[in-house]
Amino acid sequence: MDTTDRIQHLTAPASPAQQRRAMAKAITLLESTRADHREQADALLNALLPHTGRCLRLGISGVPGVGKSTFIEALGVYLIEQGLRVAVLAIDPSSTVSGGSILGDKTRMERLSVLESAYIRPSPSSGNLGGVAEKTREAMLVCEAAGYDVVIVETVGVGQSEIAVHGMTDMFVLLQLPNAGDDLQAIKKGVMEIADLVVINKADIDPDAATRARVQIQSAMRLLGMHGNPDHMHQDTVWQPQVMQISGLLGQGLDGFWAAVQEFERLNQANGRFAARRQQQATRWMWERIEAGLKQAFRANPAVQAALPALQQAVLDGQCAPSVAARQLLQAHAATVTEAAGASGALASSVN
Amino acid sequence: MDTTDRIQHLTAPASPAQQRRAMAKAITLLESTRADHREQADALLNALLPHTGRCLRLGISGVPGVGKSTFIEALGVYLIEQGLRVAVLAIDPSSTVSGGSILGDKTRMERLSVLESAYIRPSPSSGNLGGVAEKTREAMLVCEAAGYDVVIVETVGVGQSEIAVHGMTDMFVLLQLPNAGDDLQAIKKGVMEIADLVVINKADIDPDAATRARVQIQSAMRLLGMHGNPDHMHQDTVWQPQVMQISGLLGQGLDGFWAAVQEFERLNQANGRFAARRQQQATRWMWERIEAGLKQAFRANPAVQAALPALQQAVLDGQCAPSVAARQLLQAHAATVTEAAGASGALASSVN
Repeated sequence: MDTTDRIQHLTAPASPAQQRRAMAKAITLLESTRADHREQADALLNALLPHTGRCLRLGISGVPGVGKSTFIEALGVYLIEQGLRVAVLAIDPSSTVSGGSILGDKTRMERLSVLESAYIRPSPSSGNLGGVAEKTREAMLVCEAAGYDVVIVETVGVGQSEIAVHGMTDMFVLLQLPNAGDDLQAIKKGVMEIADLVVINKADIDPDAATRARVQIQSAMRLLGMHGNPDHMHQDTVWQPQVMQISGLLGQGLDGFWAAVQEFERLNQANGRFAARRQQQATRWMWERIEAGLKQAFRANPAVQAALPALQQAVLDGQCAPSVAARQLLQAHAATVTEAAGASGALASSVN
Repeated sequence: MDTTDRIQHLTAPASPAQQRRAMAKAITLLESTRADHREQADALLNALLPHTGRCLRLGISGVPGVGKSTFIEALGVYLIEQGLRVAVLAIDPSSTVSGGSILGDKTRMERLSVLESAYIRPSPSSGNLGGVAEKTREAMLVCEAAGYDVVIVETVGVGQSEIAVHGMTDMFVLLQLPNAGDDLQAIKKGVMEIADLVVINKADIDPDAATRARVQIQSAMRLLGMHGNPDHMHQDTVWQPQVMQISGLLGQGLDGFWAAVQEFERLNQANGRFAARRQQQATRWMWERIEAGLKQAFRANPAVQAALPALQQAVLDGQCAPSVAARQLLQAHAATVTEAAGASGALASSVN
């Protein structure tokens, strides 16, 4: 199937079933590591772009047990009832280790997954966090091109994966339990300071504890300067990170949550931060991939692989300074690329 | 001067003055960016190594106003009175921006700097944080080869520089003011969790506040699991991060501090963590330099510089997916190295 057909089936499908198949195929192509697939995948990505960007990208994180799946399922059903189409993607750091996935499997969200306006995709199940995040970003573009209105990217709390999700979404929401210490953990991992909205979930179980937690988190956010507003003259035009409680998962809990999300989007669209954040994310994404690619080429270089064990041991034994070993390996890397080119020099020379 | 002379003047000098000159010259050589100097510097570094490693590397950090200079000067004088030789180096993140240095200048520590057993070196005044950290690591090896017993590396609190100092020292000490919020800042920046010892300074000003701060920090450290001991059977053989108050800068304050440092060293030498930490640091240092070198070569490549502006703009305009742009730039980088080799292909071919 060529790129034009793929785009056609995604953006103007003959049927919902055709679109669903096209999404699954596109995401599978983007996840493929085969070199010839990569070329098709890049063509597809660039062809997708004009059809993307009109969707709200919502990141949701929280520790295991905080009630993420239940919350996301309730939110998804609520949004679909309002006429929106909702996709749920996941970045599961455990899947990068185990090859399995604890997030995003359809059976977890039975009520949501049966709805035609919902699309649920589990986390890519191999690769390091950078690779998984890359695939999720690309899958998000497929969902956007297919006309989904809200893409929810969920992750579980290990710090790194939350920063990855923050780096690909318009708004980052942190779910918290009304527990002492839970807020300190989030501060420690640097997650609290990137949250646009903190939601204290399960507030119904112990309303007093939830209120204490809310006050504590608000005070911590103030101390940490997270309410810092660079433009004090226009506080009403800049979103201030908020803390809210949700009592159970129905009724005004979701109403209030969704109203806050819409207010965030309205303010940030008006003051230009919405577009600026997406541009920053795109630039950072490009550089992350460049750095990953440079490291990959270095580690795959046979000359580096040949020299590395002895130099690494010399460093450990105090026989070679780490910076000297680094320079020697960099030289070996550069020299081999040059030599390989010299061997095929006839070809390169004929170009000149 | 050749490497043998340099090492001779450093490790077995004819006079203290000769050693001091040799140290200054060696550090200047290591800081040089000239290619021919770099070769001499690498030879010097490897020749230094056998003379290093017998010194205690102590990192000290804290926000401006916490009293770092006064504390370090008092500690230095105290250690010299005990017959030790003390070097003070600095990593000043502000110097990487302004070219100036707010840390480590000799005039700040007048009492210490006049002592023959003290060596004070200001922060390298140019380069990014990675470059400055690199130079400080190498200067540390010069001090060690010159027989200093304790090298203190100080930095001011901006998170990144503290992690750099932690990555090059045997023990990392965080100075704190007895202020509410000060501990939260340290937790937020991830500094609290890498501290081996937290010292609440200026406890004499408000002893009650200092005690409250100590209890708070101890409780935060417990909640954050920083006292986590992987080997619960042998708690007395593993250092537990501690919080102590210092009332003023004289008398038992320094005694208690130095006793804690010695206990840390004794335990970590006995359980093997001292050597393991140094080996980890050496390996990480090597990889940091490799990554920095790969990025530098990429950014310096004319083909990359030619293609980057248009691709970056295409990414910002949503015309090109970031991952596609990254792959195109990586290809341009690899192809140019190949082409350059092809142009000088005769040479490379004649080798085959």
